[in-house]
Amino acid sequence: MYPKNAWYVACTPDEIAEKPLGRQICGEQMAFYRGPQGRVAAVENFCPHRGAPLSLGYVEDGQLVCGYHGLAMGADGKVQSMPGQRVRGFPCNKTFAVVERYGFIWVWPGDQEKADPALIHHLEWAVSDEWAYGGGLFHIGCDYRLMIDNLMDLTHETYVHASSIGQKEIDEAPPATSVHGDEVVTARHMENIMPPPFWQMALRGNDLADDVPVDRWQICRFTPPSHVLIEVGVAHAGNGGYHAEARHKASSIVVDFITPETDTSIWYFWGMARNFNPQDQALTATIREGQGKIFSEDLEMLEQQQRNLLANPQRNLLKLNIDAGGVQSRNILDRLIAAERAPAAELIASAQ
Amino acid sequence: MYPKNAWYVACTPDEIAEKPLGRQICGEQMAFYRGPQGRVAAVENFCPHRGAPLSLGYVEDGQLVCGYHGLAMGADGKVQSMPGQRVRGFPCNKTFAVVERYGFIWVWPGDQEKADPALIHHLEWAVSDEWAYGGGLFHIGCDYRLMIDNLMDLTHETYVHASSIGQKEIDEAPPATSVHGDEVVTARHMENIMPPPFWQMALRGNDLADDVPVDRWQICRFTPPSHVLIEVGVAHAGNGGYHAEARHKASSIVVDFITPETDTSIWYFWGMARNFNPQDQALTATIREGQGKIFSEDLEMLEQQQRNLLANPQRNLLKLNIDAGGVQSRNILDRLIAAERAPAAELIASAQ
Amino acid sequence: MYPKNAWYVACTPDEIAEKPLGRQICGEQMAFYRGPQGRVAAVENFCPHRGAPLSLGYVEDGQLVCGYHGLAMGADGKVQSMPGQRVRGFPCNKTFAVVERYGFIWVWPGDQEKADPALIHHLEWAVSDEWAYGGGLFHIGCDYRLMIDNLMDLTHETYVHASSIGQKEIDEAPPATSVHGDEVVTARHMENIMPPPFWQMALRGNDLADDVPVDRWQICRFTPPSHVLIEVGVAHAGNGGYHAEARHKASSIVVDFITPETDTSIWYFWGMARNFNPQDQALTATIREGQGKIFSEDLEMLEQQQRNLLANPQRNLLKLNIDAGGVQSRNILDRLIAAERAPAAELIASAQ
Repeated sequence: MYPKNAWYVACTPDEIAEKPLGRQICGEQMAFYRGPQGRVAAVENFCPHRGAPLSLGYVEDGQLVCGYHGLAMGADGKVQSMPGQRVRGFPCNKTFAVVERYGFIWVWPGDQEKADPALIHHLEWAVSDEWAYGGGLFHIGCDYRLMIDNLMDLTHETYVHASSIGQKEIDEAPPATSVHGDEVVTARHMENIMPPPFWQMALRGNDLADDVPVDRWQICRFTPPSHVLIEVGVAHAGNGGYHAEARHKASSIVVDFITPETDTSIWYFWGMARNFNPQDQALTATIREGQGKIFSEDLEMLEQQQRNLLANPQRNLLKLNIDAGGVQSRNILDRLIAAERAPAAELIASAQ
Repeated sequence: MYPKNAWYVACTPDEIAEKPLGRQICGEQMAFYRGPQGRVAAVENFCPHRGAPLSLGYVEDGQLVCGYHGLAMGADGKVQSMPGQRVRGFPCNKTFAVVERYGFIWVWPGDQEKADPALIHHLEWAVSDEWAYGGGLFHIGCDYRLMIDNLMDLTHETYVHASSIGQKEIDEAPPATSVHGDEVVTARHMENIMPPPFWQMALRGNDLADDVPVDRWQICRFTPPSHVLIEVGVAHAGNGGYHAEARHKASSIVVDFITPETDTSIWYFWGMARNFNPQDQALTATIREGQGKIFSEDLEMLEQQQRNLLANPQRNLLKLNIDAGGVQSRNILDRLIAAERAPAAELIASAQ
Repeated sequence: MYPKNAWYVACTPDEIAEKPLGRQICGEQMAFYRGPQGRVAAVENFCPHRGAPLSLGYVEDGQLVCGYHGLAMGADGKVQSMPGQRVRGFPCNKTFAVVERYGFIWVWPGDQEKADPALIHHLEWAVSDEWAYGGGLFHIGCDYRLMIDNLMDLTHETYVHASSIGQKEIDEAPPATSVHGDEVVTARHMENIMPPPFWQMALRGNDLADDVPVDRWQICRFTPPSHVLIEVGVAHAGNGGYHAEARHKASSIVVDFITPETDTSIWYFWGMARNFNPQDQALTATIREGQGKIFSEDLEMLEQQQRNLLANPQRNLLKLNIDAGGVQSRNILDRLIAAERAPAAELIASAQ
């Protein structure tokens, strides 16, 4: 239950630097590799000769060569050659539109005619020298929507991440959720509170005092299919909070690209983009390590939640005001999935 | 296929000392914890908010707090509070009757109205200063009835535990099985034999010679749902055997509480209670270690037996005289299970 | 989908030297052991008493004794004794014809009346002093026919074993496949090429120069049910190749006995027999180690190929000329399996 006509993050460039990568995305087995002119390509991970995974092969002259018997495939899914064989009649492989942009490889698992690179959101932090980015990848055994729920309701920080970014004041500040077309925004502002350990570290990283009251904000933005970008930060109290001048605050964007592998597993690309001291690579590493530890705390919770839900299909979950972000995001997803599954029906309906 | 209207051992107090415990018992997912006044409580291990396992949370003011978003549940399964929420309309969780007694936490997984603490058997060895107890817990992948069979036919000691408690004379002494209401007793007496290594150790522990002939006994008592308590011991030969005075013998009770997790897995609480040198904690530890090693020898046999039975559903097993203890125990279980499943039918039948 | 009326390699003598061996072959659970006079026997691995695996027991006086309660079974599957029991009415176990020959234990999993030891192929290399043999055993998660395909098309050496026995010239030499009754032969000859590393080692082992051009051959012979014996070798170029005198060449037989465990897993007995320096045990060990490394390179490919095929049942694989060996072998297997499944129908058909 995920949209397939959408751009998902498939992998990062380092994952295909040495050899092809086999990865399942939205139920499709894909082989990613660098083809002609080093451009990224993705084909069905299945050799038409004998069914070997093409990702176990290698790239030669821009072609993906099967590691079993040497069948060479082009980025168009057509078999180009095979030692001692005429390959004209060989069946073609499915191909998948891929785009390398913003430091990620993006893939469109669905209807390939609809794959328009212009539909990839602009990510200013990924192209500007004023920003630095660090991140990682987790494989998690849960429905991608449980991860969206998690990120669109940061109340959980108080409980799951009590020792780093959690604090009681999050609970006490009700979030406000609004929907703008296909975008859902859940915002929470906390005023005049003490910064938790992670933000003390970030304040120090920005040469700011870490032991004084701050205003803190979390502005979560969901956009389909499953991107959640979260503006987070603290400013020394009384300087305008979110709108404070840069010299009073430490702020960043939590980056979450959630790619379904199956109905109950995901590739979770997480990271943080910041616009203070962007040239400080040691700080990037420190933040990345801290964030990795924090986000790994969600793993057990999400996987056990998934198992509990599978074991209790008859239970209806609650939809509270803190859940509004996830609920609204799911509404948008339901609409997109329905439209994908019945495009003809929708056309008729919209003509009436 | 297990009675649910019965008291099972769920866990030991040390398992819930630090944090809640999630455990499946008779197919029910339960969260165990110490609630108000330190009393043990058990609720369905499912947060009504978003399905997280409550056992990943913590206890605060006697309430079980979900570790995901802070929902607090009372021991009655009612939601008491949640930050920023009105919880009056929240659905209740199932609760399970629990009793802490004899050094164990007991749970009643079935019809809660029938959970009468008076139905827990009296265990003299657990309350008397003249006895000492040591034990442990194994998780085993087998039907709980295979474990009952195992314990109600100690012939297997000769083969599975040849180096510790097994000896050929067990084989040669036919057991006598009798049924008393819901209790099954299988008794075996061996006269004038040499003690095997485990009993040599126990004789020494009781300051008795370990190199002289003994009379040995094993009296296995099954009571529903799946408790097997075994009186075992040796007395220097010619002093009356089982009825010998304490100064001539080393005797103890093998304690087995078998709690079904699923149809093919169990929580097996094993231990030994003895009434000689009860204050000798080093001896308790030695016996516990020895018993743990011996009982672990059954694990592979039981799990492979279970797999063999699942793979050969068409095979009828034999019911020999040595199997009488297990067979009679299963008869009682079948009767209890049938009565549970068709209480109305039984009422009608008994009224005719 | 495998013939059951056939001799398969079940195990090697060292596997039953210390204790019985439990192994599933063609879907049958078997217990192998040395019975009366040290002769190998195989019975269903299921104790008729309580279903324990007999392979967990031990051998006493030529009988297989169950390790749970002491039931003793003869090689004829009849229960011989059990402590304290009369065993006359006990059900018999299935038995399997076994033959120890050529350094292997062979088993006939199907119709026992048809088990004729004369049907085991003669293996000259296994009985002649002029040959030495070394080998090993792998468990692989794939259909046994994928392994036959692998061995009947050595084109894959170029890709999977590039650093040892692979070389581009294999690709360039088209193989010739012929069928002789139930035997399939795929032969490939390469002339005047440089020997790859494995063959350099073998040339040195035979006191021959390893840096001069050679003629190389691979003659793969499939015989049912799943034996692939491959004559391989190199001769200094210009001496007649395959027909060169022994002093010009290093040659051997790659031995592959493939025994189905289930439809998607095998016991793969691999090895190499050579007729140069047969008394050199260090060379045997070196070759065995090298071959083990090379053959382990196939494991990941075969297991991922199997998973890919299971996930894509709708895809038809190609049958190229290089696949002729595997395709013809599968044709023979299909015929044998059909004949096994409809023996009556075949009898009628042949009588018309």
